[in-house]
Amino acid sequence: MNKMVTFALVFYKQTELFIYLIMRKHIFNAGPCKLSDQTLQNTAKAVIELDNCGQSILEVSHRSKDFQAVIDEADALFHEVMNIPANYHVLFLGGGASTQFAMLPFNFLKKKAAYVDTGTWSSKAIKEAKLFGEVEIIASSEAANHTYYPKPGSYTIPTDVDYLHITTNNTIRGTEILTDIDSPVPLFADMSSDILSRPVDVSKYAVIYAGAQKNVGPAGCTVVIIRDDMLDRVVADRAIPSMLRYDIHMKNGSMYNTPPCINIFAIRETLKWIKSVGGLEAMEKLAIERANIVYAEIERNSLFTSPVQKDSRSRMNIPFVWTPGNEQYQDEFMDFAKKCNIVGIKGHRSVGGFRASCYNACTIEDCQALVNCMAEFEKQVKK
Amino acid sequence: MNKMVTFALVFYKQTELFIYLIMRKHIFNAGPCKLSDQTLQNTAKAVIELDNCGQSILEVSHRSKDFQAVIDEADALFHEVMNIPANYHVLFLGGGASTQFAMLPFNFLKKKAAYVDTGTWSSKAIKEAKLFGEVEIIASSEAANHTYYPKPGSYTIPTDVDYLHITTNNTIRGTEILTDIDSPVPLFADMSSDILSRPVDVSKYAVIYAGAQKNVGPAGCTVVIIRDDMLDRVVADRAIPSMLRYDIHMKNGSMYNTPPCINIFAIRETLKWIKSVGGLEAMEKLAIERANIVYAEIERNSLFTSPVQKDSRSRMNIPFVWTPGNEQYQDEFMDFAKKCNIVGIKGHRSVGGFRASCYNACTIEDCQALVNCMAEFEKQVKK
Repeated sequence: MNKMVTFALVFYKQTELFIYLIMRKHIFNAGPCKLSDQTLQNTAKAVIELDNCGQSILEVSHRSKDFQAVIDEADALFHEVMNIPANYHVLFLGGGASTQFAMLPFNFLKKKAAYVDTGTWSSKAIKEAKLFGEVEIIASSEAANHTYYPKPGSYTIPTDVDYLHITTNNTIRGTEILTDIDSPVPLFADMSSDILSRPVDVSKYAVIYAGAQKNVGPAGCTVVIIRDDMLDRVVADRAIPSMLRYDIHMKNGSMYNTPPCINIFAIRETLKWIKSVGGLEAMEKLAIERANIVYAEIERNSLFTSPVQKDSRSRMNIPFVWTPGNEQYQDEFMDFAKKCNIVGIKGHRSVGGFRASCYNACTIEDCQALVNCMAEFEKQVKK
Repeated sequence: MNKMVTFALVFYKQTELFIYLIMRKHIFNAGPCKLSDQTLQNTAKAVIELDNCGQSILEVSHRSKDFQAVIDEADALFHEVMNIPANYHVLFLGGGASTQFAMLPFNFLKKKAAYVDTGTWSSKAIKEAKLFGEVEIIASSEAANHTYYPKPGSYTIPTDVDYLHITTNNTIRGTEILTDIDSPVPLFADMSSDILSRPVDVSKYAVIYAGAQKNVGPAGCTVVIIRDDMLDRVVADRAIPSMLRYDIHMKNGSMYNTPPCINIFAIRETLKWIKSVGGLEAMEKLAIERANIVYAEIERNSLFTSPVQKDSRSRMNIPFVWTPGNEQYQDEFMDFAKKCNIVGIKGHRSVGGFRASCYNACTIEDCQALVNCMAEFEKQVKK
């Protein structure tokens, strides 16, 4: 059993001393998920005191120079790490990516929008868009139970729509598109679960958005990368609440209202970490390496199989199910994984099975611990 | 000069040891604002590891039993500390109180709503309501520059409106209503800046909401306390986005989408702290004591005066301005306050002057440090 003391945390308060030894698990959560040691340590430190300012990041005014420095650096790092052109704003908003499902059509759906349906999250986005106008589903993997990602070129993007919306990675089904498609209309992409995992040609997108709680940071903030000229396309005659208007957030530097300060702090730390270990090229290399390790074991292991077509497999979320005849090992395997200090591999409640979510901060060692656990379990039950 | 080492924070990571000595300031920020030592320490610890689960509060799945325990306890503590009847839900939402300005009329404004206008934040709420229906301003302190709070009984609440909206404390102007009014129509109250500072008769309100970043916890979460029967009053024929529907958040226990987990954790810790020091009776006693100390010095000190009428003065936000002829000391006083380790007393940019925000975690010692600073400065410039 692989018990790792990664941190010890000691508080000294007046005359009392508190010491905590931390046993870290191998974390495969689908989101919120594993973050870098650097993000955790620096955020914990800032919760006690931000940058020697005598206040916690939980206490400091969002209008102070101390916090302005945090959000400015997060913004600059996003531009640098993702190579975002100067004519895009990066927004840090509350409310979750689910709010974006409605906010995008609220602002931009005049008459009709095109959507690619690749599973649960794109279906939710489609549902919200229908509140505001007509939706044309131009490609869907639904008939095949969302086990593949529709190939660019296999469908036609209409030119009479206000925008095209895609979901680049499907957290629940484990499919991903690894290329940046060309679109004749503004392209909106929900990149919640694969942003920052590979270099992206941002200039091909009008809007990229992502709930932070996978590769960006903790839950509680949504990042929106929006091309400035989209402001000219806001539906003119619609009464849009101020908090749902992109132009208001852009003009106010994400501080029209009090932003989620600690969440933005942790995002900055995550971006600093990504930059320090080699940026998105390094993240992609790691993502490929992790995915290769886990998919190889799924292929090799007689107990497990992948439900996803080979050319659509996600590097971020790797689902696997029992090969027929082995379902009776479910509870036993979950217990064994727990003993191996592995958490978060239970599949989404809507599809069952297992899912190893391998986001940026998930290490090769984590993946090796998982495949060792799978192989060891096979030995035990097949001997 | 009063330099306080409150905490030392030590990280041990593999072979490296990090030690931080923390100098705490006297924090009078208007929000985000000072939080209890207990909130800071326990949140910092949870950022490294939540309840011995081998994961950070930034990493743990919101669907795990570990996080469910956090949100369940926050909910139970809110009911207990505020004495909230069983027929109310407590919601923990993202997006800020500014989102509620629109969400309330989006759900409940069929035709006409009544608003009391007591300054900046109620004006913003009124602006959003007008997107959805007619607004009748039944009382306003605008003509007197919002220097008082309209007395209950000085205006009539119409019975042909869908609801009445009030702002119980006006952060910028420093006015507060300290009684729970009777309303013949559903009463909605923005309690962002005085919730949890005194016992409240929740049963008189249909909806109470508050951005967390004053008395409740850090920025990034909004608490909504809503009476269950309000669900029957949702406007039937309006297309409301899922994330803006109270019924969806109520049915999903605030987890329709991924909630702001660390923010909710810090709220739980703040509620635990309030309970441990004597609940809302103790908070009210402290609030009165703090306000007495600061207002007494403003009255006594020849340099400063209060712009707020005596019977409307807020216990939470205490603005003060120069008595005429002393404005030239502005920069000198700000420098002197900084030397006294006092932060956050600059008035809101829209009104100028000074403001000492004295929320729950602000101590008697903090207030004494402020009045000592004010008195000392008077001695220096008047000698």
